[in-house]
Amino acid sequence: MASQWTRVRNRGRTWRAGRILTKYRFVVQYRSDGFSGWQVQKDRPTIGGTIEAALTRITGETPSVVGAGRTDAGVHALGQVAHFRLQRSWPVDRLLKSLNGVLPSRIRVLRLSVASNAFHAQRDAQRKRYVYRVYNGPILSPFLEGRVQQVYRPLSPEAMQEASALIVGTHDFTGFTASASQVRNRVRTVFVSRWQRKGRHFSYRVEGDGFLHHMVRNLVGTMLQIGLGQRPARDMIMILESRDRRLAGPTAPARGLFLARVWYRT
Amino acid sequence: MASQWTRVRNRGRTWRAGRILTKYRFVVQYRSDGFSGWQVQKDRPTIGGTIEAALTRITGETPSVVGAGRTDAGVHALGQVAHFRLQRSWPVDRLLKSLNGVLPSRIRVLRLSVASNAFHAQRDAQRKRYVYRVYNGPILSPFLEGRVQQVYRPLSPEAMQEASALIVGTHDFTGFTASASQVRNRVRTVFVSRWQRKGRHFSYRVEGDGFLHHMVRNLVGTMLQIGLGQRPARDMIMILESRDRRLAGPTAPARGLFLARVWYRT
Repeated sequence: MASQWTRVRNRGRTWRAGRILTKYRFVVQYRSDGFSGWQVQKDRPTIGGTIEAALTRITGETPSVVGAGRTDAGVHALGQVAHFRLQRSWPVDRLLKSLNGVLPSRIRVLRLSVASNAFHAQRDAQRKRYVYRVYNGPILSPFLEGRVQQVYRPLSPEAMQEASALIVGTHDFTGFTASASQVRNRVRTVFVSRWQRKGRHFSYRVEGDGFLHHMVRNLVGTMLQIGLGQRPARDMIMILESRDRRLAGPTAPARGLFLARVWYRT
Repeated sequence: MASQWTRVRNRGRTWRAGRILTKYRFVVQYRSDGFSGWQVQKDRPTIGGTIEAALTRITGETPSVVGAGRTDAGVHALGQVAHFRLQRSWPVDRLLKSLNGVLPSRIRVLRLSVASNAFHAQRDAQRKRYVYRVYNGPILSPFLEGRVQQVYRPLSPEAMQEASALIVGTHDFTGFTASASQVRNRVRTVFVSRWQRKGRHFSYRVEGDGFLHHMVRNLVGTMLQIGLGQRPARDMIMILESRDRRLAGPTAPARGLFLARVWYRT
């Protein structure tokens, strides 16, 4: 009798699987130490893969987790947004608590809610903010290790500020993207691009409607050359106009980069 | 010939060893992850032992490093002060740079200078500041992990502030020290004792002429009970007067504690 009932219930769930799925969205913070970035990979621990495994452990289902941005290895997040779907409905408070109970402490889900079925964390993102942190000095605090890029020689905040302002607006960012990028449309709009400085701590904030692969790190790598006096600020425009990646500076290390926030219409 | 010269030079150094030693003092910051505290131990990595090994590697000598405070395992330092002696004189800039080049990135020497031969980092310390950080909420940022004590239930900042003020002054702190403490004189003067709060982040600052073993952590453990409404603020006075460790709250975890600063006359 029991096994008959189980079969009936399982059949019910299987049927519902193709029909009624509940979509959840969440905001997640993570320290990327020890992970091979966000995107799920075979045989490598990733942030997305670790969240999927935690969801499987809690729910018994095998949902796919889709993030707003596929952060590279070494890139941190203060407010990545992602979604997944489940067959069974869960009280959001309980699911949030269970997730943080199962996840390693380097990953914390800050908020979780039910989303409309149309919501897509990647395609619907309207604006993203990245922050890149630089420490300009010879001795880096142990408490900032792995969370900031250290530059030993003095940077000019004025030159970097001037450079950062030159990329605000709608431009083809081919010159600042990874050479291997397969994306066709490389036109993006940057709303905010500015450096802030507190003593030896520099912080770059950039907000835009989307970012190409390595775009923020290539922008920063170029602006650091400018800050060191190795090239003029106007090179930012020259690189944009050239659409030639070889003219930009080196890709700045991932450790200073944070996906800070993602905005949606709803 | 060469070996004769070497012998003469070595004899010279040996002779100088008992006579003219240069004393150095330094300020050091460390993250205690993976170390068994400050004090040198056999077969266990400690912060003091790691600095001694770095000095040996750089200088070939085997100096003892003496710190202002013997921070326990898990306790961090923003500004520990220590001294050591070397037979050979070193330019301080070069020694500082070499030390940070050899030390793991969890330990950074911030400043290093030549001290008078009379200077003693532990005995001459006139005032120390400790900071204890608490996060009061259900979800701890991955960027604060291991650097803050998490308290889930709501704390009353007013009750904790009231409690902290009650220990300012000169008191016998037996009630707040580790029961196994061998120190005879347990009278200490606390100059500053106060909580600050920014949203869910609480920070306790305490400054005094000296601190007994586990004193700050026992003070915090008791004040957290007070903040949770488990006992009244006036218990601070009752525990001081009783000189009975059993009446104080539990020892708060080391991870939230930072040796922030040490003051000397010179």
